[in-house]
Amino acid sequence: MDLDVDLDGLSVARSARTLKWDVAEGELPMWVADMDFPPPEAVRRAVAEVAAEARFGYASTIPRPLGEALSGWYARRHDTVIDPSWVLFSPGVNLGIGSVLRTLTAPGDEVVTLTPNYHHFFHTITTNGRVLAASEMIFADGRHQIDWEDLEARLASPRATAFLVCNPHNPTGQLWDAPTLRRFGEIAAACGAFVICDEIHGDLTDPGARHNPWLRVFAGGGAVGGGSAGGASAESAAGGVAGGLAGNRADSGAGEPVGGAAGVVMATSTSKPFNIAGLHSAALVIPDPIQRARVAAGLSRDDLAEPNSFAIPAAVAAYAEGGPWLDAVRAYVAANRAFAVDELARLAPEARPVESRATYLMWIDVRAWTHDSAGFARRLRRATGLVIDPGVRFGPGGEGFARLNLAAPRSRVADGIGRLVRGLEAEATAG
Amino acid sequence: MDLDVDLDGLSVARSARTLKWDVAEGELPMWVADMDFPPPEAVRRAVAEVAAEARFGYASTIPRPLGEALSGWYARRHDTVIDPSWVLFSPGVNLGIGSVLRTLTAPGDEVVTLTPNYHHFFHTITTNGRVLAASEMIFADGRHQIDWEDLEARLASPRATAFLVCNPHNPTGQLWDAPTLRRFGEIAAACGAFVICDEIHGDLTDPGARHNPWLRVFAGGGAVGGGSAGGASAESAAGGVAGGLAGNRADSGAGEPVGGAAGVVMATSTSKPFNIAGLHSAALVIPDPIQRARVAAGLSRDDLAEPNSFAIPAAVAAYAEGGPWLDAVRAYVAANRAFAVDELARLAPEARPVESRATYLMWIDVRAWTHDSAGFARRLRRATGLVIDPGVRFGPGGEGFARLNLAAPRSRVADGIGRLVRGLEAEATAG
Repeated sequence: MDLDVDLDGLSVARSARTLKWDVAEGELPMWVADMDFPPPEAVRRAVAEVAAEARFGYASTIPRPLGEALSGWYARRHDTVIDPSWVLFSPGVNLGIGSVLRTLTAPGDEVVTLTPNYHHFFHTITTNGRVLAASEMIFADGRHQIDWEDLEARLASPRATAFLVCNPHNPTGQLWDAPTLRRFGEIAAACGAFVICDEIHGDLTDPGARHNPWLRVFAGGGAVGGGSAGGASAESAAGGVAGGLAGNRADSGAGEPVGGAAGVVMATSTSKPFNIAGLHSAALVIPDPIQRARVAAGLSRDDLAEPNSFAIPAAVAAYAEGGPWLDAVRAYVAANRAFAVDELARLAPEARPVESRATYLMWIDVRAWTHDSAGFARRLRRATGLVIDPGVRFGPGGEGFARLNLAAPRSRVADGIGRLVRGLEAEATAG
Repeated sequence: MDLDVDLDGLSVARSARTLKWDVAEGELPMWVADMDFPPPEAVRRAVAEVAAEARFGYASTIPRPLGEALSGWYARRHDTVIDPSWVLFSPGVNLGIGSVLRTLTAPGDEVVTLTPNYHHFFHTITTNGRVLAASEMIFADGRHQIDWEDLEARLASPRATAFLVCNPHNPTGQLWDAPTLRRFGEIAAACGAFVICDEIHGDLTDPGARHNPWLRVFAGGGAVGGGSAGGASAESAAGGVAGGLAGNRADSGAGEPVGGAAGVVMATSTSKPFNIAGLHSAALVIPDPIQRARVAAGLSRDDLAEPNSFAIPAAVAAYAEGGPWLDAVRAYVAANRAFAVDELARLAPEARPVESRATYLMWIDVRAWTHDSAGFARRLRRATGLVIDPGVRFGPGGEGFARLNLAAPRSRVADGIGRLVRGLEAEATAG
C-alpha cells in the first residue's frame, strides 16, 4: 500500500536526464521544484500500462476523464464543486497561462501580481509582450503582507486586465484565507480585470492546514458570505457546493457567478503534488462558458489541446488513487520542515524561515547576512555544492531571501541545512 | 528481430483513448495519419525503461542526445549533414511551426504554401494572425504541378515573409526533386522570404525511392550544383556533405550558406515514421545561428522547450535502432499501395490514385463522381462506415479528391477499398 512507502529510504539516482539532477558530483540540488520521491504506485501502474500496450497514437483532444477525475478530487479533498465541463486540458500550468494571456489580454496590457512570486510567471508575462505590474508585499512581523493600497492602484490602471495569483502562495508557502481571496476578487471585478488563480500547490498543505480553493470561496449564487472573518470557512463550503452549479446556470438570477464577478481561470496540475512534472498534464478550470470557449480556441491556436499518451491516464490515476500517498508525503514534508526549522534555530538562529503551512518549499530570510541573494547563492554553490533558488529571482521583495526544496529524504534535508549553515558562516567571515 | 514482425497479423484495439479509434462500432477510420502498427520494439523498450524507473521529473531543455541521434540518422539514411547543434526540440511539428511563425514573421504577414496541402498548417497560419497565401497547383496529366508563375507572384508580395512546404508533399505523396527544391529556395531568397521545410514524411518513401532533404540540396559552400537535371542527385550528396559544415563556418567565404540564401527551418519528427505521435517529440533544424537563437527564444517564450519524460528517449531509440522496422513498414505500405491501386483499377477504374512514392497516404481523384468531397465523405461514412479525409480540407485544388491512410493491415485496406467502391457506386446511383 502506498502509505507503507519508506520515504526516508528513497533516493533518486543522479541522472543528466532530469533538470534537477544535472549537477556536478557532490552537489545537492534544492532548487528545482521536483520531489525526490517516486510518484504513487497507481500512477506508475497507469503509465506502465500505456507503455505496455504501446498506445502512442494521437490522443483525443477532449479528455473528459480528466475533468471527471479533477472534479471528484476537488469535491472529496477540498469540498469544492467543479463541473467536469469546466475543465480544459493544458500540457502545463505555465503553458496554459501563457496561452490564456495571449487569448484574453492584449499586447502591452499589464498583468498584476504580488511579489515575491513564482518567477516563471514573469517570463511568461514579459515574453508574451505583456507588462509585469508587480505589487510588492511588505515584509513585517516575519510575514509578507499584502499592500492593499498598492494592489488596488495597480489593478486600477486602465491597462491592467489580469490579476495572477498563486494560491497557496509560492515561494512563501502562505495560505490565503477566504476573506483575502474574496477581496482579491472584489478589487479585480471593480477594476475590470479577470483572475488567474494558480492552485498547483493547493494539494501540498501541511496535515491539518486547509487550502482555500478560489472556486469554493466564489462558489456562485451568493451562498458564500463576504469577508467577515479570517481562516478557512468550512461551514460555508456546503452551501457553496450547492450554489456552485446553480450559479453557473443561465437561468440563475441570484447572486454572483461561479468564480466571482471578475471571472476566473483556475490552473492546477498533478505535476507538483504527485511529482510527475515530466508527464505534462495540467488543467485550466473556467466556469464562465464564453471565457472558456475563448481559452479553448486559444489552446487550439497554440496546438496545446492535445495531451501526450501518458498525460491523462497518469492524472486520472493520481486523482483516483493518489490520496493516501499524498497524505504520507504531506506528513513527511511537514516533519522535514519542523526539522529544518529546529536545525536552523539551533545552528543559525538569525536565519529566519518564513512561517508556512503549504508547499514543500522553505522560504528563508537571510538578510542578517546579505541582501544579495544571487551572490550568496553563487558563493554557496561554489563553497558547499548546495544549489538553492536566490530570492531575488522571485522579484521585488525577494532580495534577501533563499528558497529551499524540502521534498527530499530527511538525511538529504539535514545535509542541505548543514551546507546552508556553513555557507552562512562563510558570509559572516567574509563580511 | 523487428524485421520479423508480422504486420499482416497486427491490429490496434478500438479505444476511445486515441483520436483515430474514437469511432462507432463497425466504422473504419482511414483519415487520422496514425499507423495501425505498434512502434518498433526499441522504442517500446526505451519507453518502458523510463516508465519502470519512474523518471518523471522536469527534463533538461537542452536535449543534446536528440541532436546527435537525428544527425546520425540523416547521415546514414539520407546522406545529409546535420550538425547536432542545429537541432532544437519541439513537442511537435505543428507546435514548432506555429512558434516559428510567431517569432520570425509579423501579424498580417503572408505565409505562402502550395495547395492542396496538409490542412493543419492553414489553422496554424490563420489562428496565429498570419495570412494564408495559397498557390494552387495545376492538376494535369494525373499530377499536381507547380504553377511557378503564380508561386513567384505570391512570394513577390511585400507581405510574404515565409514559404512553407511539405517535402515530400502531403497529401499528394509527391517527392520533390533537387532542381525543384533549389528553385523554391532561389525564389524565396530573391523575395526575402525564409523557408519552412516540413520533412515529417521524408522517412516514409517507397523502397527504392529517395527523399531529397532540403539540407542535402542546400548543403552550403556551393558544393551542390544548381538545377540542371531532374531526380535525386546522389552523386552530388557527397560533395554536399563536405561542403555542409564548411559552409556554416563563419570563416567560409565561398558559396551559399547551409540551408540556402533564404534561410531554412527544417522540421521533422519521429512521430510519423515510427508511429509515436502521442509521445510529442519533434525537431526544428536551423543551420543559421542567429535565426536559430531567435527560434529558441520563441520556443522558450511559448514554454515549448521542455520535453516530456518520454520524448527524447523514444526519439533516440527510434533513430538509433528503428531503421529495420521502418524498412519493413515501407515495404509493407508500398505493397498495400500497389494492392489498393490494382483493386481500384479493377473495381472503380474511374477513381484515379495520384502516383506517389512517399507517405502512407493515398490521394485519389474522384472527380468522375463528384467535386464535393466533403459531402461525399459524409455520405460515405453514413453508408459504409469508412472515414476518410475529404480533399477539400487540403485547400484549393483538393475539392474533387479523397485521402486514405494505407498504414494498416492488408485485410483492413481491402475492407476500406471495398467500402470506398461501394460509396462511389452509391454516388453514381444518386447522381
